[in-house]
Amino acid sequence: MTITFAKRMDSLRASEIREILKITQREEVLSFAGGLPAPELFPVEELKEISVRVLEEMGKEALQYSTTEGYKPLREKIAERMNRKFKTTACADNILITCGSQQALDFSGKLFLDEGDLVLCESPTYLAAISALKAYGPRFVEVPTDDKGMIIEELEKILATQKGIKLIYVIPDFQNPTGKTWSLERRRDFMKLVQQYDIPVIEDNPYGELRFEGEILPSLQSMDRSGNVIFTSTFSKTFCPGLRIGWIAANAKFIEKYILIKQGADLCTSIRSQMEIATYMDVFDFEAHIEKIITVYRKRRDIMVEMLDKTMPQGVTFTHPQGGLFLWVELPKHIKAMELLQDCLKNNVAFVPGDSFFPNGGVKNTFRLNYSNMSEEKIIEGIQRLSEAIKKFRV
Amino acid sequence: MTITFAKRMDSLRASEIREILKITQREEVLSFAGGLPAPELFPVEELKEISVRVLEEMGKEALQYSTTEGYKPLREKIAERMNRKFKTTACADNILITCGSQQALDFSGKLFLDEGDLVLCESPTYLAAISALKAYGPRFVEVPTDDKGMIIEELEKILATQKGIKLIYVIPDFQNPTGKTWSLERRRDFMKLVQQYDIPVIEDNPYGELRFEGEILPSLQSMDRSGNVIFTSTFSKTFCPGLRIGWIAANAKFIEKYILIKQGADLCTSIRSQMEIATYMDVFDFEAHIEKIITVYRKRRDIMVEMLDKTMPQGVTFTHPQGGLFLWVELPKHIKAMELLQDCLKNNVAFVPGDSFFPNGGVKNTFRLNYSNMSEEKIIEGIQRLSEAIKKFRV
Repeated sequence: MTITFAKRMDSLRASEIREILKITQREEVLSFAGGLPAPELFPVEELKEISVRVLEEMGKEALQYSTTEGYKPLREKIAERMNRKFKTTACADNILITCGSQQALDFSGKLFLDEGDLVLCESPTYLAAISALKAYGPRFVEVPTDDKGMIIEELEKILATQKGIKLIYVIPDFQNPTGKTWSLERRRDFMKLVQQYDIPVIEDNPYGELRFEGEILPSLQSMDRSGNVIFTSTFSKTFCPGLRIGWIAANAKFIEKYILIKQGADLCTSIRSQMEIATYMDVFDFEAHIEKIITVYRKRRDIMVEMLDKTMPQGVTFTHPQGGLFLWVELPKHIKAMELLQDCLKNNVAFVPGDSFFPNGGVKNTFRLNYSNMSEEKIIEGIQRLSEAIKKFRV
Repeated sequence: MTITFAKRMDSLRASEIREILKITQREEVLSFAGGLPAPELFPVEELKEISVRVLEEMGKEALQYSTTEGYKPLREKIAERMNRKFKTTACADNILITCGSQQALDFSGKLFLDEGDLVLCESPTYLAAISALKAYGPRFVEVPTDDKGMIIEELEKILATQKGIKLIYVIPDFQNPTGKTWSLERRRDFMKLVQQYDIPVIEDNPYGELRFEGEILPSLQSMDRSGNVIFTSTFSKTFCPGLRIGWIAANAKFIEKYILIKQGADLCTSIRSQMEIATYMDVFDFEAHIEKIITVYRKRRDIMVEMLDKTMPQGVTFTHPQGGLFLWVELPKHIKAMELLQDCLKNNVAFVPGDSFFPNGGVKNTFRLNYSNMSEEKIIEGIQRLSEAIKKFRV
């Protein structure tokens, strides 16, 4: 006899990105592979002050167990900021604090998905959302997507013909992996359509506040009259990932279920970390801090796009993100990103081949580049090496 | 149409304890209901120093994403401490850091359980383990338990006759809810028996280091030659719950699967919190801190047992825990703990009726008392009121 694992374990495999990241952790590698925010922008000094203050003023509460839903003053601030920036109408009771927004994805799978259910998502979509949801055994239907978001006619066909659709998962702002943003019109058309069905929509928005130009567009949740849009976000990109604070903003009918799930999953998120973020917002200027991040990332995006414009051979196309951390490159069909990566690694440059962002696989000629986590000089050098490697293929 | 939740949601209900705790949060209630450690023992001052030090020395790493398995120096220290105290032979690679040991329970359900599988557990057992595992749809088989642990003959019968047993869940040290500890002989007999089957055993040990008298007994994992015993624990009771740091110690064949699950569930646990605990252990005397907790809890246990001895009418029995946070009271069969609680609440005293600790329900005349979270004066007053309420029933 041997140990039998649950059936779901058959579909869980080590993430390809994770394996690549291991190779690329060597100092000399110029890595566009990860999705890390720039650590030089973390508010280390401010947090030193804040951490002492929280322990001094609320030490015993900060180190105790706390309510599952989270620290109320933080939930109030989150609701207020969301309403201001994303035009929602949330209050503290609509917010559940999670361990990063990854936990919101896991909980969403747990809440909505039985084995064999269908999940609709953009094609491509966020790799770690695929992993989180896969644990609950769904099948993914990739909805064709253009530069303005999900293609409504395609979505309409799928909704009208497929049975067992339990969840729609989208990232309308500076999508991971493509860096694309849905247009205002597309958001309206999408909401008009999906409100005819009773299907929950996860609007995953970890990057929305990091907009480099123009105005933040209204969130899907702000246009929703059905109460079925669940907004998830995180402080990982605007503050730091190390505190592991994200959230779910949703209608009470969902939040009460998510709270039950969180009780069983980990009881509560560190209230001390929540108090620190709330106190930071009281003492320091959070919006100014975000502006600082935007300024740095915008410059890095500019350099990367400029370098790609300058060096990429004809037949290679790439996105021009207006915010966020990533852009997306499409190679001529005959060049396989995984082979290109092998060549690039010899020259100490790395990226993530696009295949793993398609839940059903099969797209070999794309890859994702991250620009948030590297200096301008290194971006210049890295893209130079990348384009040289591409040119060795017959373009 | 309405939203369809996953089938598993049918079995998830708000925890009874949670609802009771809400009532008992009023200042005037003497509550033996919770399971909270004493906040006056939290190392608040030390953590002020440590938090600044960690941010000063490792700020950027502390606030960044980190590896899923956890901070290596902490995993090394955990392995060393376990080996010293619980006679295990773990190394850092056997350890996965989790968000409290509750997360270890959730992950164990995810790893091993398909719908309809059987979980064997002590009768009664830890309420929140029931909730965590229930999300994966198993049936529970309660194994009869006496003062020395699971009754081996009963376990043997179940193992020999029942199909689909996928997990055995036990708490051999100062069990929640009963406060009982398995004898050395029972541990040996248990391991001798279960090693004939290929079934993973979760040895949940959050309280083991809080032993008030005698020597810590060897863990089940230390006696295991099959590699199937998974040990889980936490810093919530020995340090503080607010950092949300627990761990799983297991054979590599399991740890690699748990890591995959954690990747999908929340990517990683706060590395800053992990660095803080590791640094605390370097700078301060952790064992002395635990001794301090033991001294206080031992006194509280003594007072509670003394008061129960003094005030309880005949026919009421209770356990004498040698460590941990809880003791367990058995009433004469005709007194229902839930009715007693209603009476007690009128006199501002609270506890948790035992029924919810039996996964299949049906035991009405027991309840759990917590002594870690209340001053000696309040324990005296609370038990006085409790016994008066009991005496109003015809004992």
